[in-house]
This record gives sequence, structure tokens and C-alpha cells, in this order.
Amino acid sequence: MMCGTVVVVLCAFAVMPILALNFTYETKYLDVPVDHFSFASNVTFRLRYLVNATHWRKHEGRPIFFYTGNEGDIEMFAQNTGFMWETAPEFRALIVFAEHRYYGQSLPFGNNSYSEPKYLGYLTSEQALADYALVIAHLQKDQDRRSPVIAFGGSYGGMLAAYFRMKYPHVVAGAIAASAPIFQFSELTPCEAFSRIVTADYNSASAECAASIRKSWAAINNVTKTDAGKSWLSTMWKLCKPLKTLHDVKDLKGWLSDVYTNLAMINYPYATNFLAPVPANPISVMCSHLPNSSLTDKLLVKSLFKAVSIYFNYTGSSKCLNIETEASSNLGDLGWDFQACTEMVMPMCSDGHNDMFEVQIWDFAKYSETCYKKWKVRPDEKRAVRFYGGKDISTATNIVFSNGLLDPWSSGGVLYNVSNSTVAVIIPEGAHHLDLRESNPADPVSVRTARKFHRKFIRLWLRNYRLPA
Amino acid sequence: MMCGTVVVVLCAFAVMPILALNFTYETKYLDVPVDHFSFASNVTFRLRYLVNATHWRKHEGRPIFFYTGNEGDIEMFAQNTGFMWETAPEFRALIVFAEHRYYGQSLPFGNNSYSEPKYLGYLTSEQALADYALVIAHLQKDQDRRSPVIAFGGSYGGMLAAYFRMKYPHVVAGAIAASAPIFQFSELTPCEAFSRIVTADYNSASAECAASIRKSWAAINNVTKTDAGKSWLSTMWKLCKPLKTLHDVKDLKGWLSDVYTNLAMINYPYATNFLAPVPANPISVMCSHLPNSSLTDKLLVKSLFKAVSIYFNYTGSSKCLNIETEASSNLGDLGWDFQACTEMVMPMCSDGHNDMFEVQIWDFAKYSETCYKKWKVRPDEKRAVRFYGGKDISTATNIVFSNGLLDPWSSGGVLYNVSNSTVAVIIPEGAHHLDLRESNPADPVSVRTARKFHRKFIRLWLRNYRLPA
Repeated sequence: MMCGTVVVVLCAFAVMPILALNFTYETKYLDVPVDHFSFASNVTFRLRYLVNATHWRKHEGRPIFFYTGNEGDIEMFAQNTGFMWETAPEFRALIVFAEHRYYGQSLPFGNNSYSEPKYLGYLTSEQALADYALVIAHLQKDQDRRSPVIAFGGSYGGMLAAYFRMKYPHVVAGAIAASAPIFQFSELTPCEAFSRIVTADYNSASAECAASIRKSWAAINNVTKTDAGKSWLSTMWKLCKPLKTLHDVKDLKGWLSDVYTNLAMINYPYATNFLAPVPANPISVMCSHLPNSSLTDKLLVKSLFKAVSIYFNYTGSSKCLNIETEASSNLGDLGWDFQACTEMVMPMCSDGHNDMFEVQIWDFAKYSETCYKKWKVRPDEKRAVRFYGGKDISTATNIVFSNGLLDPWSSGGVLYNVSNSTVAVIIPEGAHHLDLRESNPADPVSVRTARKFHRKFIRLWLRNYRLPA
Repeated sequence: MMCGTVVVVLCAFAVMPILALNFTYETKYLDVPVDHFSFASNVTFRLRYLVNATHWRKHEGRPIFFYTGNEGDIEMFAQNTGFMWETAPEFRALIVFAEHRYYGQSLPFGNNSYSEPKYLGYLTSEQALADYALVIAHLQKDQDRRSPVIAFGGSYGGMLAAYFRMKYPHVVAGAIAASAPIFQFSELTPCEAFSRIVTADYNSASAECAASIRKSWAAINNVTKTDAGKSWLSTMWKLCKPLKTLHDVKDLKGWLSDVYTNLAMINYPYATNFLAPVPANPISVMCSHLPNSSLTDKLLVKSLFKAVSIYFNYTGSSKCLNIETEASSNLGDLGWDFQACTEMVMPMCSDGHNDMFEVQIWDFAKYSETCYKKWKVRPDEKRAVRFYGGKDISTATNIVFSNGLLDPWSSGGVLYNVSNSTVAVIIPEGAHHLDLRESNPADPVSVRTARKFHRKFIRLWLRNYRLPA
């Protein structure tokens, strides 16, 4: 997992409920072209999608609820989008979760898929949307009365749901786009906005907590200046691999940044399972270990270890802290890193003053170099805005953009009504797409209201749905 | 030229005014990616576009009039779209004609461009639209106040103008889509509709004319049954290459079909130049040679030769009739044939009863085989509807669809208002995108009105144009 402020990864797929596998489905596959936009090759691959038709009234043309899969194994999304499961029966809807190409089992070139640009280059959002259009055509193909489709998605999946409605309004009748940072692109949103929201989350838990974290960077630097200090911290933090170099210290700080960001995204009001389990309201729990920012460096570093333990070792079963856990072995991370290095360029920065992070400037040239070294591709900073419109989405219809204000990704979210039919839903107490999760007794009123709002709009879209004459 | 009823070619590019080269422009080039929708390769090529900035008030953010080039050399479109030239001064607009990739000088792989699918496969409408979006970004890049863009196009270019507004509403403020047969796809329009309109054009010139043509197929078959008959016709018609086989006779009939169709498209109220010049109202002139459908076969065939002479030899300078003229050597034809064999599958047929053509059924399997033999690609019959929505375009905004009712392509045109902001303009006396041509004293009132209507809508779109905050 690399859900950090600088390494821009949307981490929707990382969140799993403690009670996993509540929802059941059939696993299906459809052959789709690797390249929808040329006739240069006719290679196809098997795209995976999950289907539950328990409630569907197919021949009455009842709707299809279609999750536009994002950067991860589609089964994780199926398990973490309880809202679709809970809402489908009322609408007699088919439930579909379509896997995003290059993730999970949907690998266009098998084990070679990630090997070089000539294979990996077809990992783009436009190709994914074209895949989804084919899956839908397939689902509707023997219907006398075509089912309207409602797209759902969270995070990057929410962006895809919204883009799907914008680009294929004839395929999708409406979209619930949860925590979709479609404004998180160059020149649309200040690069520091994300870090500031993370910081605000810790600040509202306690001002001392955010201040402690802000001070901790220097404390870590000071403590680890000497070999003895590195050794002390390594022992104290039970690092699986002791710190040896400055680079190791930098990695540790990077890992910490990611932890803070991840916790801000999954700061849910009930316990969830994210690689290791975390408790309800994890930021508050974590911050309870950081009540005092005026500690000495060593004491601060000590407290910090206790604090972050709730993230990596809440159950107490971890023998040592491995800051490389899941680093780059995870397909989701790898794929998103490529997407961030091509079309999904989301500038991020921090100033250490208005946020609690170390100073990090946004340097596109450097970013581009790093991308080229990793992937042999160059990011196209303006591409997403050129294709999807940036803030110029006034013609979009039938989209609900929902954002939790605890969620750092709300920095790039649509927080105002764009028109009568493209509207914003704000969930003040919500973290990353909380509204798409199954309902829970601990849910705040705002997310319950948001879900009612979603249902109201879905009903409206379906009522207004007309097939052309 | 193969502008026929069965070989589906949109022939906009073939029409040239007798007074050519009235309009002047700078020729420019922009490097664009061969493939906009993957990162598998970073090959680029030079896309040509023509610019006239005489009237443009760039720094006031005055509009860009942008012709979305279609299947031919862009200079032909620049010379045949007088409406843009005549309208630009009033709006202080920049005039741009962008060439469609794989036509004219815009060849992605130079001389190899047409050699095999791995080169030719990037000839798609989606790629062309992405090219245009880049050209526009380039034109706007040093503007403080971004110019709104009005897209214009005729025929396939009109389809592109409409699609451009649908898919890139943030790039294009509105579109004048003239004679754009966006409904000429499978299951949207009966395949015989096109042939019937051609027939109606000849019928309104004179019922005897259409009846003569309907009878002529059998007359030609009868006359050419014997070698002596073939020889007689070859001499009588001054064929450059005498008829020898049944296949030659079939080619002759194919050529005739194309002539009738072409004349229906360019049935303008003033003389124009189409390979060879034709007079004003060419169908009437032609039909004046076919006043009597009850002639004997030989006499009918004789009259027919006189009739079609107005098409291939109006000036009398042609020494012999070459039915292979321009057959497949023309890039425009070749390229369109490929597009018709991939995404632009437009079913065409005739029954010889309700129309004046020989019976020709629409056989997709056979069509697909022919395509595969020619190009090593298979047509995707449903692709255009999947990508562009078919008749399901209710969310489209700011598009004028204009159609002349003399134009056979109006069979696939949008002839009704789709919404308040996507409207139809009918030009009863108009042939193929007459409204985009420069004004002429012989223009019927309906086309003058249509042009006023276009201007009114352009004014409205520009008045309502808002940049996002």
C-alpha cells in the first residue's frame, strides 16, 4: 500500500469489512478488445465481472446497478459496496461489479501485462469505460425491454462512474459518484489541499495530536542522526529491518505519511479491516497516544510508535514492523502508479506549516523523470482535463457527487451543485466513500441522509428514463 | 470516386466550386499522437490544419470556427465551406480547417499509412476527435481569455462536429452539423431509405426519367447478352475499355448507380465542378434526355448515354468514358472504404420496385467477408451506436442538425428537434450540405433561412458561453 500524499494512490480497494464475504455472486467473464480505439490489432482478453440476479426482474426491464471497478481486485469492491446490495432489492435491480482492466484477474496479457509499455499501455480510463459499455451491451442483449443502468463507484471508481455518464449517456441513465476527486488535476485544485484536510482530521481529534505529528519529523531526524539513534529507534519501534542509512529514515517517514493519510480515508465510525484491523474512529484512538506535543524528541518518537501501532498492530499479533509491507507487490498499487504516471496526474504537496507533513513541493519535471525511470512513459499533465473537461462539466446530467468532509480526497471533489441534475451531497462526518458502504448502527445521520438522497435520485432517473423511439 | 448506394461513401469532398480558391489561409501542422487512447507507443505525426486569422480578435476571446475535417484533402473543404468564410467576419472569428488523419497530407505513417492494419488501424473517428481537441488546445494555449469554439462539418464531417460537441462539450460550445447521417447505422434506419430518396429526386424531375432508369438495368442486360451487343454498347457509349465480360457489364451498372447517387447529392441550383463540371440542377438537365420510358432497349440505352454525358462530359472534352476513373486511387475513397469496413457500417439496399435501382440486399456477413479480404479487418456493426448513442441522444446540447430533403443522406439525418438546444433544420430544396456552401444568387429561400438560423444559434451559444470559475 502506498496511499500517500505524494505518491498519489486512491486507496478504495484497501478497505475490507471485518465481516468479509457477506455478499455472494456469480463470477463471469467477457472477451473484450485490448484496444477499443483502433483496428490495429484484434487481440482480446477476458474481463471479469461479478453478477447477482437474485432480485432482478430482467424481462420487466428493471435496472442494472453497475459498479465501475477501480484500481483493485473487483471482489474487494463487491464486499465493500454494501449500499448497492442493500438498495438493489427495492429496485429489483441486477447487481454487477465489473473489474477494471489490469487489476485483479482482468489481465490483458497475463503475466506480461505489467512488463512493458507495449502491454501495459492499454491501461487507461477510456479503455476501461469502453470495456464497461461492452459488458452492459452483453447484459442487455437478449432483453426486449432494455434495462436502464445506474453506475456506482467510489474514489477512482466514482470518477469512472461520473465519466461513464458524461461520455456514454446513452448507456448509463445516472451515476452515483462517491468521493470522486475529478477536480484533483493540475490547475484545478491547489496541490496542498489534500494534506490540509488530512491535518484537519488530526487537529479535530486533538490539536496536540496534529502538532505532535508536525514536530515528529524533526524529532525523527534528530534522533536518527547517529548510528546509535538509528539503532535505538529500530529497537524501540521493533522494525523488522533496522534503519541503516538516511534513505531508510526517509522510507520510514514516507511510511508514516501514508499511515496518516490512510487513516484519514478510513476514519470510519466503526471498526474496519485494512490489511490489519483498525478500531472505530481510528484517528481519535491514535491521537489518544499523542496528547502532548511538547515532549522531548525521544519521548515524542516513543509516543508516536504507540500511536501508529493502532494502524499496523491493533490486534497485537505483529512481531515486527515492516515498513515495506505490500509495497510494490500489490497489483493495485502498481497499476495505479502507472495510471498516475500517464493520465491520472494529481499534483500533491505540503508546506509543513498549514499542514502537519514535511515540506514537499510539487515538481512536475521531477515527477515525469521518476515516471519515465519506472515505466518508460511520460505523464500527460493536461490529458485528463482535455478528455473529461476539468471543472467545465456544466452539460453533465444525472450525476450525484458525494463527498465526506473527513476524506482528504474531498479536496478534489465536486462540492457544489453543477446543475439541477448534477448535484453535490456533502457528508460532514464521512470519510472516503462511507456512503457506499453497508449501513451500520454507528453511521452518522449525514450518511444515512446521503443514502436516502442517492435513492431518491436513482428513482428520479429511472422514472425519467426513456428509450428512443 | 465510389459514391454509390451500396459502396457507402460520403462524397462531400468531391464537390468543388467552379471558381475554386476564393479563400486563403495559412497551412500549419501540429504533432499529435498516433494513438490517443493508449500509452503503448509514443509515435506522433504531423496533422495539417488551415488557418485564417484576418478577422479574429484573439485577445478579446472571440470565437474559433472549427471545421472538423472529413474523408478528404482539407483544402477541398476549405474551398467548399463558404458559409464559414462568410460568417466569420461578423463574429470576429478565427477560421480553422483541420484535416482528418489518414487523408490529404495528414498521413500518420507516410506512404505506409495504408499498407496494413497495424498502420491503418488508427483511422477512427474517436482518434480524429482527439486530434481536433489537441489542435484547439494549441490554438487557445496563450490566450488569457479562452475563445469558445464552434464546430462545423458537412456529411461525415457533420457527424464529427456533432460527436465532438457530444463527447467534448468542454471543448466545443456548439456544432453546426450539416447533412450528418448519424442515424444511418444498423437498426436505426431502413437500408432502402437512401435509394428511395435518390429515386424521388429523379421522379420529381420527371416520372419518365426515374422509370427509364429503372427499366435501363434490364435493357443493358438484354443488349449486352451477346458479344455483338457488348461491342455495340461499347462503341455507342465511347467506352475507353470495351465491355468483354459479364463482370464488365456489372461494373458499368455500378458506375451508373454511383452517377445517379452523386448527382442527387450535388443537385445544386447552380453549376458546380465535380471531377468534371456539371450544370445547375443537374438531375433536371439529365432527365431532359430521358422523357420516355417506353423506348426499346437499344433506344433506351442510347438515351441513357446522352443523359449521363452531362455528368462525365458536360464540357464535351472527354474523348472516351472511363468507368474506372478515380476508382480506388483516391485516398479519400480508400480511407472511407476502410472506415466503412470498421466503425462506419451503414447498411444500404434497394428493391428495384420502390426505387429505381437493381435489387441489392444488405448482407452483413458478405459485407464483412469483403472487408476482410480488402483490409484484413472485420466491421463492428454495433460500434458506432455503442460509442455515439444511435438515436439515444437526448442529452446532447447546442447542435443544429441541418438536412436538405433532396440529399439522399437525409435518410440518416436528424429531422426532428431532439431538445430545446439540439434542433433540426430542414431545407426542402437542398442537396448535400448546400447550407455550408457560399451563398449564391440561385440559392433557394430555404437555404438562406437555414443559414440565418445557424447564425442565430451560434450567437445564442456564444452569449451563453461561460468558462468555469
